[in-house]
Amino acid sequence: MKLIPGSKRKKRRAHLDTGAYLAPGTAPGTLTFDPDAARPSIRLIAYSPDDFVEREIEDLEEIRVERGEWPVIWVNVDGVGHGEVLSQIAEIFQLHMLAVEDVVNVGQRAKVEPYDEDLFIVARMPMGEPPATEQLSIFVGPGYVLTLQEKPGDVFDAVRERIRTGRLRIRSSDPDYLTYALLDAVIDSYFPVLDALAEQLEDLEERVLDSPDKSLVSDIHRIRRTLVGLRRAVGPHREALNTLLRDTRYIRAETAVFLRDSYDHTIRILDLLDSQREIASDLMSTYLSALSNKMNEVMKVLTIVATIFIPLGFVAGLYGMNFNPEVSPWNMPELNWFFGYPFALGLMAAVAAAFLGLVWRKGWFR
Amino acid sequence: MKLIPGSKRKKRRAHLDTGAYLAPGTAPGTLTFDPDAARPSIRLIAYSPDDFVEREIEDLEEIRVERGEWPVIWVNVDGVGHGEVLSQIAEIFQLHMLAVEDVVNVGQRAKVEPYDEDLFIVARMPMGEPPATEQLSIFVGPGYVLTLQEKPGDVFDAVRERIRTGRLRIRSSDPDYLTYALLDAVIDSYFPVLDALAEQLEDLEERVLDSPDKSLVSDIHRIRRTLVGLRRAVGPHREALNTLLRDTRYIRAETAVFLRDSYDHTIRILDLLDSQREIASDLMSTYLSALSNKMNEVMKVLTIVATIFIPLGFVAGLYGMNFNPEVSPWNMPELNWFFGYPFALGLMAAVAAAFLGLVWRKGWFR
Amino acid sequence: MKLIPGSKRKKRRAHLDTGAYLAPGTAPGTLTFDPDAARPSIRLIAYSPDDFVEREIEDLEEIRVERGEWPVIWVNVDGVGHGEVLSQIAEIFQLHMLAVEDVVNVGQRAKVEPYDEDLFIVARMPMGEPPATEQLSIFVGPGYVLTLQEKPGDVFDAVRERIRTGRLRIRSSDPDYLTYALLDAVIDSYFPVLDALAEQLEDLEERVLDSPDKSLVSDIHRIRRTLVGLRRAVGPHREALNTLLRDTRYIRAETAVFLRDSYDHTIRILDLLDSQREIASDLMSTYLSALSNKMNEVMKVLTIVATIFIPLGFVAGLYGMNFNPEVSPWNMPELNWFFGYPFALGLMAAVAAAFLGLVWRKGWFR
Amino acid sequence: MKLIPGSKRKKRRAHLDTGAYLAPGTAPGTLTFDPDAARPSIRLIAYSPDDFVEREIEDLEEIRVERGEWPVIWVNVDGVGHGEVLSQIAEIFQLHMLAVEDVVNVGQRAKVEPYDEDLFIVARMPMGEPPATEQLSIFVGPGYVLTLQEKPGDVFDAVRERIRTGRLRIRSSDPDYLTYALLDAVIDSYFPVLDALAEQLEDLEERVLDSPDKSLVSDIHRIRRTLVGLRRAVGPHREALNTLLRDTRYIRAETAVFLRDSYDHTIRILDLLDSQREIASDLMSTYLSALSNKMNEVMKVLTIVATIFIPLGFVAGLYGMNFNPEVSPWNMPELNWFFGYPFALGLMAAVAAAFLGLVWRKGWFR
Amino acid sequence: MKLIPGSKRKKRRAHLDTGAYLAPGTAPGTLTFDPDAARPSIRLIAYSPDDFVEREIEDLEEIRVERGEWPVIWVNVDGVGHGEVLSQIAEIFQLHMLAVEDVVNVGQRAKVEPYDEDLFIVARMPMGEPPATEQLSIFVGPGYVLTLQEKPGDVFDAVRERIRTGRLRIRSSDPDYLTYALLDAVIDSYFPVLDALAEQLEDLEERVLDSPDKSLVSDIHRIRRTLVGLRRAVGPHREALNTLLRDTRYIRAETAVFLRDSYDHTIRILDLLDSQREIASDLMSTYLSALSNKMNEVMKVLTIVATIFIPLGFVAGLYGMNFNPEVSPWNMPELNWFFGYPFALGLMAAVAAAFLGLVWRKGWFR
Repeated sequence: MKLIPGSKRKKRRAHLDTGAYLAPGTAPGTLTFDPDAARPSIRLIAYSPDDFVEREIEDLEEIRVERGEWPVIWVNVDGVGHGEVLSQIAEIFQLHMLAVEDVVNVGQRAKVEPYDEDLFIVARMPMGEPPATEQLSIFVGPGYVLTLQEKPGDVFDAVRERIRTGRLRIRSSDPDYLTYALLDAVIDSYFPVLDALAEQLEDLEERVLDSPDKSLVSDIHRIRRTLVGLRRAVGPHREALNTLLRDTRYIRAETAVFLRDSYDHTIRILDLLDSQREIASDLMSTYLSALSNKMNEVMKVLTIVATIFIPLGFVAGLYGMNFNPEVSPWNMPELNWFFGYPFALGLMAAVAAAFLGLVWRKGWFR
Repeated sequence: MKLIPGSKRKKRRAHLDTGAYLAPGTAPGTLTFDPDAARPSIRLIAYSPDDFVEREIEDLEEIRVERGEWPVIWVNVDGVGHGEVLSQIAEIFQLHMLAVEDVVNVGQRAKVEPYDEDLFIVARMPMGEPPATEQLSIFVGPGYVLTLQEKPGDVFDAVRERIRTGRLRIRSSDPDYLTYALLDAVIDSYFPVLDALAEQLEDLEERVLDSPDKSLVSDIHRIRRTLVGLRRAVGPHREALNTLLRDTRYIRAETAVFLRDSYDHTIRILDLLDSQREIASDLMSTYLSALSNKMNEVMKVLTIVATIFIPLGFVAGLYGMNFNPEVSPWNMPELNWFFGYPFALGLMAAVAAAFLGLVWRKGWFR
Repeated sequence: MKLIPGSKRKKRRAHLDTGAYLAPGTAPGTLTFDPDAARPSIRLIAYSPDDFVEREIEDLEEIRVERGEWPVIWVNVDGVGHGEVLSQIAEIFQLHMLAVEDVVNVGQRAKVEPYDEDLFIVARMPMGEPPATEQLSIFVGPGYVLTLQEKPGDVFDAVRERIRTGRLRIRSSDPDYLTYALLDAVIDSYFPVLDALAEQLEDLEERVLDSPDKSLVSDIHRIRRTLVGLRRAVGPHREALNTLLRDTRYIRAETAVFLRDSYDHTIRILDLLDSQREIASDLMSTYLSALSNKMNEVMKVLTIVATIFIPLGFVAGLYGMNFNPEVSPWNMPELNWFFGYPFALGLMAAVAAAFLGLVWRKGWFR
Repeated sequence: MKLIPGSKRKKRRAHLDTGAYLAPGTAPGTLTFDPDAARPSIRLIAYSPDDFVEREIEDLEEIRVERGEWPVIWVNVDGVGHGEVLSQIAEIFQLHMLAVEDVVNVGQRAKVEPYDEDLFIVARMPMGEPPATEQLSIFVGPGYVLTLQEKPGDVFDAVRERIRTGRLRIRSSDPDYLTYALLDAVIDSYFPVLDALAEQLEDLEERVLDSPDKSLVSDIHRIRRTLVGLRRAVGPHREALNTLLRDTRYIRAETAVFLRDSYDHTIRILDLLDSQREIASDLMSTYLSALSNKMNEVMKVLTIVATIFIPLGFVAGLYGMNFNPEVSPWNMPELNWFFGYPFALGLMAAVAAAFLGLVWRKGWFR
Repeated sequence: MKLIPGSKRKKRRAHLDTGAYLAPGTAPGTLTFDPDAARPSIRLIAYSPDDFVEREIEDLEEIRVERGEWPVIWVNVDGVGHGEVLSQIAEIFQLHMLAVEDVVNVGQRAKVEPYDEDLFIVARMPMGEPPATEQLSIFVGPGYVLTLQEKPGDVFDAVRERIRTGRLRIRSSDPDYLTYALLDAVIDSYFPVLDALAEQLEDLEERVLDSPDKSLVSDIHRIRRTLVGLRRAVGPHREALNTLLRDTRYIRAETAVFLRDSYDHTIRILDLLDSQREIASDLMSTYLSALSNKMNEVMKVLTIVATIFIPLGFVAGLYGMNFNPEVSPWNMPELNWFFGYPFALGLMAAVAAAFLGLVWRKGWFR
């Protein structure tokens, strides 16, 4: 049974990443892991209104113990490629095999799936530069929140700080509020990304309008494909949050008010992404027009110079011919005229003036 | 806890403005203010069918007093960056912390959110040149309307005048009618903006069709991005007004008839914006075609001139060669012909005529 | 209180016309009129199955009289800018002030609004060349139909003729049937407009394909913006007619069958408009391709001529150099060769042949 | 009363045909006919499970007779322009005047309209080359199917053959099955049309990619507008068949199974049309790119030739100047050098080499 | 009765393939076969939780026998062109004639059709390079799954292996689970195809941005049309799976959970295809811009060279004229100046410098 997990394949750029997937025909829930994968770090935070504990977990059995003692525990796993750890975790929280498959095969769309025992949520966090996204899998069940990330590094430091502080609402709330806090942090972490992209777009706009140069082609293309990738990652969150808002088993009404806020932010982000994509598309056509403009300028210079000097050169060539004026009065008598040379210069001036006049009257070069 | 309020960040152009947002992961309702922000001016207008009072408020406690004495009070705050004032106001009107967060983090989409105690409305007013938008936050509750603006200067002078006049319906109506009057003023203030844009588009059309010059590229691009920004700002009002029309707690049926009118105007504005965007897109492609046309003209001139004079110059060059006619009867005997020069001129005329004929017959230059 | 009625503002071309609107913040129903507006002509047609009367109305009180005596009266007002007339009419038929505001501020979208006393319908009639649209306001109530037009001239002559004729269904029907007949006439009057546009598009197609010249740019742009304007005007009729079909108070089931037919026609017109817009867009890109083709042709001529004659000219120039063959056997001995000149001509022929051969083999100019 | 029937107007190409329509304002059901129209051929096929009859009808009263004697009769009329025939038919089958108007004013969209006495169906058959469509009007009522075509020639020969054969299901079914059979034949007759278009598109693709020549512009444009016309004709069949599938009065459940199949085919045809339109659009942009490529090639040749030979020609011209070396040692002493000529040739070779080297290093011509 | 089965017609490229269809008007369920078609190989796999059998079937009656003895049998037929085999199969499983028609006329869209006796599913498997699709027809009924493929070769080897293995869920499940397993294998087999396309797109992106050459036009066009074809093939699976999810007769709730997973994958594939199409479209416009850039570069070289050397050549030509200085002091006295030649060279240097200065100041060539 062949598996093509995300960690094994050549990494693709975000906008074209097909994500990980099982070999077609494989039984659902099949999990194959990289035997060399490092054991992920597992961090447990458990809290009650009055107290909290936060520590790295080595023996997974500790989770069972703590789970019985605190109203809310949050287990965060920093990697999904280690088979033994994942199997144990799946067993402890009794996760559905289809959900675990989705956790391992990163590259899922954001979604919310209710299972008998828990609620399974997939979200995508923005990461890196140029911005790509990383899968975040969340399981919410009675008294626990389990989060699994593709790799170490996340956007949850502020949430952890809020738990430690203790005065805030999060400490006295159920797991659904923690879930909201995590999702909110994920959604809001797109804002700085959009801000950076907006800055790049403004730079590009200025360059297109002020001094279009050839590196713009690839810069505009790159920002367009980044936006295509982000749109694909963010889009499904809208539907996912909508599903979550209607879930009444794991999400209480008090928390739904907050989730509505995250939903609003998601739509705002999508609006902004769409505006940015439109601007980026416009930029390419604006750039093409600017290029055409520049080409026109260049061609005008060439045409003016050639139109004036080629005929002049012809006249000069004419009187450079070697016909023998001595054998015939018809052979270039101008050469021996008293005012021959001034006549030739005058002829040239007349030709040049005629061309310039024509050009001017027709207005070709305005 | 880091906050990135609108007032602190480098101001972005309207079409790319991501608005203000909390640092990802911050607790909802967190408010951080600019310690240097000036105290906003607060204006209270209270009225009954028979009387009205209008004044600047210094001590916010006055609001509580007046609220008990008039059927309707309207408190308008000209700035959202001053922490103390905002906290007091939130406390007096018992505003939900999520709503207050949205008030401070300007850049929200237009929306209507019912809370237990009041109705929270976000609208966006057009401001400045090129037209951008400013957030207007409205809270409607029993006997009061509270409006908070990003900065001084609004579109409500005509509404204030109507309250002062006293004979009009507004004085004898509930807060919902005042809310309508304010929203109506906001929506209608897009018409002059669209008018100005229509004028600019007409100018651009004329310039594209009559005398396409290179400044058009940036002018068309600028108007396109302004339209992208406006579309994003106005679009959500449609849904917001629709939600408002279905609200039966704070909006009475008599007022809904008027709101339907504002809804109509919103759709009309969106229709106009869409038409303008289409025209602006067409303009760019029309401009590209006009450019190509001009390039063709220029190239034709160059080609005609080069096609005629380069061969002529060659003939002239031919008879400028210095082969010695004396060493051989084969060496340029033409030079010593009696009609050598006229022959050469005739040859040139023939070549030129041949080229012109070819060009004419093939119709390249029509 | 400032009003910006349609009649006062600089008239805009149809595709960009924002229509008339109240100054933002003005009280709803505010009406300001041009004091110099001429009194509009008012025509009353009243009929029963057996008889009819048709005349110009001078004293508006006559309307009240006739209304009591006939089952159906149709009052048509040819202008909306005269304050006194409009106020009287509004009073006689007890029109809602919001509806009257919409009558005066021409530029409304097509719509159907039920009020307590009557049904208010806005439709847009095609007018002029290039085709723009004019607002038609219709009020239907018990026993009457009131129509108000922007200016004299309409598409209802055939309807009037049907009333006069007397044998047709219209004479024995309620006001709803007259309303249908008027709307049907409005909708159907788009067909000749579309026909004319189709003819123009065919002409443009022929010109683009047969002889693309530079006036096409503006012609295509003009037809595109006309289509944008028409699409905006016609589009809302679809929804308006749909609303009308579901109205059961003023529209009887027998008449709904006929209105379904008008609805069909509206969709057909929209289909046609969309096809025409697509064709018009295709035309622009086809034209750009044709232009590029032409440019290619021109460039090929230039390139062939230059590629052949510039090298030839160089050879001629070579033997026009004045190096002195007498000071050295190395100095241009060709000049004194017996076959020097034929050699030079042969060299030129060889160069020309080589270039032509290269060009031919590479197939650049096929 | 003016009528503009299809038969009278200048025939338009399919993609822009607005169809026939009544003069705006004309009473619904008004029919005006071409007095010179030939009497259409009318063919009656009547059948029962055991027997069938098929013949041309001269006296329309025969229809009434046959209708009483057979379970199913099918009357097919090959033309809609003859007034007397149409009036009689309308009277025999008691057709609604609005439906008859739609029959005469060919150019209707495909639709299904239930009337009290019968079901009125409009479909459009593909016809001719380039493919246009012809209106087919079908009335289905108790015991009869009436079809009216724009002109002789249809796609029903196979259906007639099935009736004659007698062993097939059609002979023992109700009129709804015959209706299905006819609609199915109409829908399926788009497949060969699409096949032919696919072949043309493949040819165009090959030509664009292998040898882009200028006739492609018009060929691509023509196929695009044909596809626009077909899309407009086929699109409404989808909704029409959907309406038909939900009709329970004239369509029995057994027949609905078959209609579902036709509905499937319609969607398949629409899918194919959309793919073809996309390919055709892509072709135009591919062609533009190919043109630009070709232009680039041509320009490179010109530039290489000009860049090398214009400087060479200048050097040759330099030494063709007639400054007198005898009056001054500064005046062109090269002319009298021993190696003057070889020096000049060397200079030229150096200049050419320099230019070629520059061109090569900058990679302009790769 | 003419049939145009898939096997008989000239094979078309996938993106334009109209599929097979009956001659218009043919009776539904008509089947015509290629008399030369080879007998397809038929493979039967029957299994129970404890045992399984797998073998090639020669005598179709064996199917009846096995069907009675095993809880689930899977009959796979590798070809649909052999009349006798297909008729027998249709008879054994009592297939509806419309379904059989769809099996034979390959080219159907993916769909799910419930019949009285069974569920008929059409899916499309990706096949070949460039990727096209092949029709897979599936019938699910009590105790059996019947699959018919266009030609030998499929994506089901992993499924067969799972059945043979025996420990997996598939052996103890009903036919609906096998159906899921097959559909899942079909859907998932699009992932490697998308992966390959993503790789091609990345290559194209690199080539466009790094070294745009003319073969890109056809490569981009080819990948675009492949994507058009795939989108058309995959799109309908979404709706088909949705229908399947709501079917409660043949699909049990346990299996629906798994199908939801396949549905998710379908949407992910569609998302990816849409992203890829967008990137491919962007590539073409990026390529056009890159081409224009290159043309600009080339033109600048030409213009600089021509602008400098044509005037220089003129000056040289000027002093190559043969006016006789001896007949007049006005005739080219420069020729006899002491510093004539240096003066001419200086003049040339001045002209060149002037042009270069102009060019530089105007910034044409930056």
